[in-house]
Amino acid sequence: MTDQLIVFDTTLRDGEQSPGASMTRDEKLRIARQLERMKVNVIEAGFAAASNGDFESVRAIAEVVKDSTICSLARANENDIRRSGEAIKPAASGRIHTFIATSPIHMEKKLRMSPDQVLEQAVKAIGWAREYTDDIEFSAEDAGRSEIDYLCRIFEAVIKAGATTINVPDTVGYNVPEQFAATIRTLIERVPNSDKVVWSVHCHNDLGLAVANSLAAVRAGARQVECTVNGLGERAGNASLEEVVMAVRTRRDIYQCDTRIDTTQIVPASKLVSGITGFPVQPNKAIVGANAFSHESGIHQDGVLKHRETYEIMRAEDVGWGANKLVLGKHSGRNAFRSRLIELGAAIESEEHLNHAFARFKELADKKHEIFDEDLQALISDEAVTPELEHYRLVASCFHSETGETPAARLTLNVGEKEIQAEAEGSGPVDAAFKAIETVARSGTELLLYSVNAITTGTDAQGEVTVRLSRDGKVVNGQGADTDIIVASAKAYLNALNKLHGKFEKLNPQI
Amino acid sequence: MTDQLIVFDTTLRDGEQSPGASMTRDEKLRIARQLERMKVNVIEAGFAAASNGDFESVRAIAEVVKDSTICSLARANENDIRRSGEAIKPAASGRIHTFIATSPIHMEKKLRMSPDQVLEQAVKAIGWAREYTDDIEFSAEDAGRSEIDYLCRIFEAVIKAGATTINVPDTVGYNVPEQFAATIRTLIERVPNSDKVVWSVHCHNDLGLAVANSLAAVRAGARQVECTVNGLGERAGNASLEEVVMAVRTRRDIYQCDTRIDTTQIVPASKLVSGITGFPVQPNKAIVGANAFSHESGIHQDGVLKHRETYEIMRAEDVGWGANKLVLGKHSGRNAFRSRLIELGAAIESEEHLNHAFARFKELADKKHEIFDEDLQALISDEAVTPELEHYRLVASCFHSETGETPAARLTLNVGEKEIQAEAEGSGPVDAAFKAIETVARSGTELLLYSVNAITTGTDAQGEVTVRLSRDGKVVNGQGADTDIIVASAKAYLNALNKLHGKFEKLNPQI
Repeated sequence: MTDQLIVFDTTLRDGEQSPGASMTRDEKLRIARQLERMKVNVIEAGFAAASNGDFESVRAIAEVVKDSTICSLARANENDIRRSGEAIKPAASGRIHTFIATSPIHMEKKLRMSPDQVLEQAVKAIGWAREYTDDIEFSAEDAGRSEIDYLCRIFEAVIKAGATTINVPDTVGYNVPEQFAATIRTLIERVPNSDKVVWSVHCHNDLGLAVANSLAAVRAGARQVECTVNGLGERAGNASLEEVVMAVRTRRDIYQCDTRIDTTQIVPASKLVSGITGFPVQPNKAIVGANAFSHESGIHQDGVLKHRETYEIMRAEDVGWGANKLVLGKHSGRNAFRSRLIELGAAIESEEHLNHAFARFKELADKKHEIFDEDLQALISDEAVTPELEHYRLVASCFHSETGETPAARLTLNVGEKEIQAEAEGSGPVDAAFKAIETVARSGTELLLYSVNAITTGTDAQGEVTVRLSRDGKVVNGQGADTDIIVASAKAYLNALNKLHGKFEKLNPQI
Repeated sequence: MTDQLIVFDTTLRDGEQSPGASMTRDEKLRIARQLERMKVNVIEAGFAAASNGDFESVRAIAEVVKDSTICSLARANENDIRRSGEAIKPAASGRIHTFIATSPIHMEKKLRMSPDQVLEQAVKAIGWAREYTDDIEFSAEDAGRSEIDYLCRIFEAVIKAGATTINVPDTVGYNVPEQFAATIRTLIERVPNSDKVVWSVHCHNDLGLAVANSLAAVRAGARQVECTVNGLGERAGNASLEEVVMAVRTRRDIYQCDTRIDTTQIVPASKLVSGITGFPVQPNKAIVGANAFSHESGIHQDGVLKHRETYEIMRAEDVGWGANKLVLGKHSGRNAFRSRLIELGAAIESEEHLNHAFARFKELADKKHEIFDEDLQALISDEAVTPELEHYRLVASCFHSETGETPAARLTLNVGEKEIQAEAEGSGPVDAAFKAIETVARSGTELLLYSVNAITTGTDAQGEVTVRLSRDGKVVNGQGADTDIIVASAKAYLNALNKLHGKFEKLNPQI
């Protein structure tokens, strides 16, 4: 019999902390539904005390997702834990994940607390959490640089207080596999009652070793891995879910455990997260990169033909690669459209909402012969901005560029209740469109990133544009999709401005 | 004293085998110059016997690069080795790297040879190679799945025959660190005269473990790592150079060795390779991703301010991150332009070539206030297509799109000697431009990928468009840059058609 490895996904918490990856509540819900479909055991839905928006997101996910445990992160203080407890209340299965730093450098320089004070605070935190749930995870922040004796002491205390999962993060990605495995092995050996809890790891990828460190820990006895879709996360990100899951599955002989993940949902999850955050997946990314299962080499192709196993250790279809699925066309009806949206994890809030989305689908079907899942995903993204958040909206546009002339854009915008005309010239039509918008918005933002990806193949594909704007240290991503790339660009820019317009403050923790 | 770890870069050989990453001779030369500047020990410049183009590329690099050893790959047959020997002749230091498969499945299904026949062939190959150089590397293809006794036997034989580097590839990326390290340790212990050669590893990233496997091998005694910039390579790619180099540097306490790499050249190399291949680097890629050194978290930023070391294990400037370097403006002269191009590794073939590039620079400076290194890189890329390869060229263009109307493009193209007008409508202006080109070219290609990245930040940035076309199983990337994204798209499409027009056949080996 093989052990079960618990997959704890933190795409919505640590992943969202990547600069530029912040998501709206609706975007988080769509990802949470996909994580549930993939059969992730635990979804870290957010950090409830960070902001009202974060609280609402965790609570909304706790209301909707029933097959995965919903977890909220909390610092080891009473307010954070009570906010988390409230947020996970609707969940069928809810967890509070509390953390405090345990390395000398963090305790001294950041917390300005003595080791004894830190231990006492951790035990108190478990007590508050127990008022809400029996499923309590404790993390020792920067465990990778903490003293082993102190770790044993604090873990013993929090287990006694009621913690059920003990997480060992490598917060700064400094560890290497042999050493990290030795730490886990020592902890499991030395901490009293270590067999009563699940040991967990949370690795960062600064040296490219997050997955290797996680797997080494699994060999040493860890039975929960914290990870993210596409390895998203602060700096170089977290251990990537798809790599961890496929490594233990492909090398069950070595790891002696397996996950309950439905691996055919991996590629759809990857595309969804990449589409929502605007973070591309590089073609040579393991498992989910566009080239991960494609072969250029002539010698090699010959090998594959002669004997499949010669070069393949996994099958593309096992992780959800397949042809673009042609789902709907011009003549598809409202019911087919509705059921496909539900399958894609979209929330249909009202008949009016559905009618609006269906009208836009028909418009798209007029311009584009074949409508793929990816097109629908883009269409839902556009719809996800609720009217009250849509301060700026594109009504109509006209662009002209010609060799020897300066490119120009003329736009009609809805701003609040008013319709406004705007025009400008620029170094190209996209620049002209952005400048035209700025004649109205005067946002004072800086453009950090502009990128376009075709959503599907073929020349009539829609362009999906991501625009990243920053103002006063705050970074937002806007997305827009259209078969006309200039229109998509203008929509993406307005989408980013709308996100800035709905002001919010939040705090991101670091484990 | 710490040992030296030899960095063997195969971006130009295994990296180029990624579907869609094939490069022209001039592009390879620019990358080779950057690898030399980064102080890579060995540059695998190509597979000389694959095609005349590959032979010419290896030879051109051997003529120009003097501070790195230039290597050509060769199957273990006389023709391959003689072609490699001829190609590396001009090198100050040249290596032949020959390989043959040693796993039961490969020997039986692919080579259809007995183990004794394979061994005999390998020894013969070393003999041919010795006619050209004393620096000979031998690789056992699919060593990761080969029998250890047989590996010992064949390595002993090739060392006796004169091989100086023994490479152990994990061709299909199936290994995990502990097991791979054990293999290397056993080989070094058991193979007679193992201390007379350098042990090397070549890991693939199918399970996300290429870097971890390479580092585990270093701990076991390997002193050469084969890697690529950005981890480029077939399928999920190879071990990434930047991660291996920074891991051994950051954790010298563990790895007990160091490289001679100038790490400040890492980010420029990453950008150059990404720009030439059109393969984006995801923001959360370790070391070279745009977010690798940036921090979102409030808690965290506070930590950084209080004490830098709290969250940083490497410094961004050590790997070459810096502000965009504003190098040239409108008023920069021809000499400043020329010296900057030379610093960027561009080959200036003639005064006429320089004049042409300078004229294009002045045009760009009229449209764009600040010219960054990245703009010059794009400009050189555009210039790199020599006139004889430029069958299709964009002379002038006019685009119009307006809400309620069908987008339209009107182009003037140079085709061979003739000037041709073309126009078409499309679902967007880019689609219209591509359709207009196809009214003339009728290429029968399929569009696999369309992507745009702004080369620098700011709304007047140039868009760099990558278009990937396929025809009859052949895949090419075209690039185009312009402040007008539609013009850049048309240029990229024509660039891809020009690459298809210059027909070539090649064979890619697999190790």
